[in-house]
Amino acid sequence: MAPIIGVVGGGQLARMMVPPAVSLGLDLRVFADSRGESADIAVTTTGDYRSIGDLLAFARDVDVLTFDHEHVPQPVLRALVDAGVAVHPGPDALLYAQDKLLMREKLGGLGLPVPDWARVANAAELDAFLADHGGRGVLKTPTGGYDGKGVRVVSSAAEAADWFAGSETLLVEELVEFRREVAQLVARSTTGEISLWPLVESIQRDGVCAEVIAPAPGSAGILADVAAEIATTIAESLGVTGVLAVELFETTDDRLLINELAMRPHNTGHWSIDGSTTSQFEQHLRAVAGLPLGATGCRDPWSVMVNILGGPSTGTFTDRYPAALAESPTVKFHGYGKSPRPGRKIGHVTAGGDELDDVVYRARAAAAFFED
Amino acid sequence: MAPIIGVVGGGQLARMMVPPAVSLGLDLRVFADSRGESADIAVTTTGDYRSIGDLLAFARDVDVLTFDHEHVPQPVLRALVDAGVAVHPGPDALLYAQDKLLMREKLGGLGLPVPDWARVANAAELDAFLADHGGRGVLKTPTGGYDGKGVRVVSSAAEAADWFAGSETLLVEELVEFRREVAQLVARSTTGEISLWPLVESIQRDGVCAEVIAPAPGSAGILADVAAEIATTIAESLGVTGVLAVELFETTDDRLLINELAMRPHNTGHWSIDGSTTSQFEQHLRAVAGLPLGATGCRDPWSVMVNILGGPSTGTFTDRYPAALAESPTVKFHGYGKSPRPGRKIGHVTAGGDELDDVVYRARAAAAFFED
Repeated sequence: MAPIIGVVGGGQLARMMVPPAVSLGLDLRVFADSRGESADIAVTTTGDYRSIGDLLAFARDVDVLTFDHEHVPQPVLRALVDAGVAVHPGPDALLYAQDKLLMREKLGGLGLPVPDWARVANAAELDAFLADHGGRGVLKTPTGGYDGKGVRVVSSAAEAADWFAGSETLLVEELVEFRREVAQLVARSTTGEISLWPLVESIQRDGVCAEVIAPAPGSAGILADVAAEIATTIAESLGVTGVLAVELFETTDDRLLINELAMRPHNTGHWSIDGSTTSQFEQHLRAVAGLPLGATGCRDPWSVMVNILGGPSTGTFTDRYPAALAESPTVKFHGYGKSPRPGRKIGHVTAGGDELDDVVYRARAAAAFFED
Repeated sequence: MAPIIGVVGGGQLARMMVPPAVSLGLDLRVFADSRGESADIAVTTTGDYRSIGDLLAFARDVDVLTFDHEHVPQPVLRALVDAGVAVHPGPDALLYAQDKLLMREKLGGLGLPVPDWARVANAAELDAFLADHGGRGVLKTPTGGYDGKGVRVVSSAAEAADWFAGSETLLVEELVEFRREVAQLVARSTTGEISLWPLVESIQRDGVCAEVIAPAPGSAGILADVAAEIATTIAESLGVTGVLAVELFETTDDRLLINELAMRPHNTGHWSIDGSTTSQFEQHLRAVAGLPLGATGCRDPWSVMVNILGGPSTGTFTDRYPAALAESPTVKFHGYGKSPRPGRKIGHVTAGGDELDDVVYRARAAAAFFED
């Protein structure tokens, strides 16, 4: 029988695993909080991802368990492993995607390039770090942050009083002067096989990924080699299985510094659905099921993905299709089945072609139909 | 809200509509004979497609009704239309895909190129036709045939005694001397918009499509223009909505003669999933939903699709993935979730690239993993 792949979480990442699962003939089953979520077509179970009992019951009928998000608590992950469930990525790897302090310690220990950072437990420690780093820093809650949440640029400890009031230990990092942000995605199979996509450029707005250009312009050569080496080292050293996204700063003094890790398909890889021989979603399924990985070459010299953030102020995403599709016959449209809401990722578009200027123009023009 | 598209029939054609529906964010609902069919992930209703009541109940909750097959009886189709259901393609068009005698009459009446043919009700009429056409002909049952079933090459009426015993009126056609078979796929939207893929070559074995080469080698120019003109005329004259496949003979004396019509996505268009900017399945959904059509250019100079017929003699389709995927990283694999059985279409593979010889080799090599 076809391998049965269980996915914890019913968001758009699980949804985007559905097309490759259907194409390949793999059996995908999604565990969601409730019905009606983005991946609803593949939902077989609803429950609480923080409940060992709920997840054990779901995992009993699958060959491998993987994730739409990184929020399953460590004790739950370890209970699943102890019960014999094949969990990919496993808790020992996911730990470093869940806790930014542990991630910084681990990557630093591996000799990988990270921004200067410190663990700070109080205002005095934070002020000391800021004094050593030009008076400003990036303060982060170690756990639970994403898409700009749990991140704050501060000039003094007074600006973090509310966070310290929670008596949490925080992560502070130097404010990196960067030219741009890039991302290196890699897939690592349970067999150890590794496959990388080209390095991409990620354009952020308000801490959220807005556009991705694949490959990152001007990145052939040393820059790409260094990024590939970093991502491969992380995937192998941390024992990551499935897709790993490494977000990096390209600094003004020509270094690459690791910003964030995600151990699942990632927004910076959505271009690969239409732009690569093997999409990040197909590759993730292959990797966690222990199947051989597919080729990751680009279908076009340039691919540009633009997120639809928030979506139309009136009506639904697909209400805009008559106008959008008519004007953009070569653009690929992706709707996540979610209602528009300010800041919410409800879809994306991808264009491909030979001339970057033209590709950027077509992708942005298509996205604009959903943005008023 | 997203348009709700209902599909009658749960086979692999309905299954292959799922990925583009999920990507676009359209709501696809499948009406199947029973659970566990190929399109099971999208099945919302089971019932009898010959039952007006079953289909009316299903159609009540959809915006448009379309098909995985052409077997819904005319009275049922007309009852749906009378009840206000948007049926695409409609009964007036489907009639000509359901009855080969009516199709021959209609296409001949439009002045389109068809083989010599006759309606024969008895042995004497058949023998008279054979005597006028070199002593041999292709005898067909007007309805219900597909994939080589209901088709027989005969040299005398005696060879058709069993069919005449059913007192059926049959269709007989000249045995066309052809160089090869080609297929022209076209999509026509409910708005009247038309879009064509390149002409493809279809290689048949035992009356069943085995391989497809896109575009058909050597078909640029007049041949492609004529095929496009024929398919456009049929789509418009018959009022077809959705995808129409026109299978044609390229004769040894350089003519194109129409062989068969299919009013749905068709095996000769499966290459488009990986090989065209817009696949036939996405285009079919757009067309029946009245959305603008997508671009139909080729992603690669050559695409080759090879069917998996029958499948492995031991184990399942996906059991062969570890070997097949490892040897064919650039090939796209498609499993239909069906058990292997002699002659059954259980999957296909598609390769793409710059050199036709290489692409054919890679596609056949990948398919061979499933064929012992």
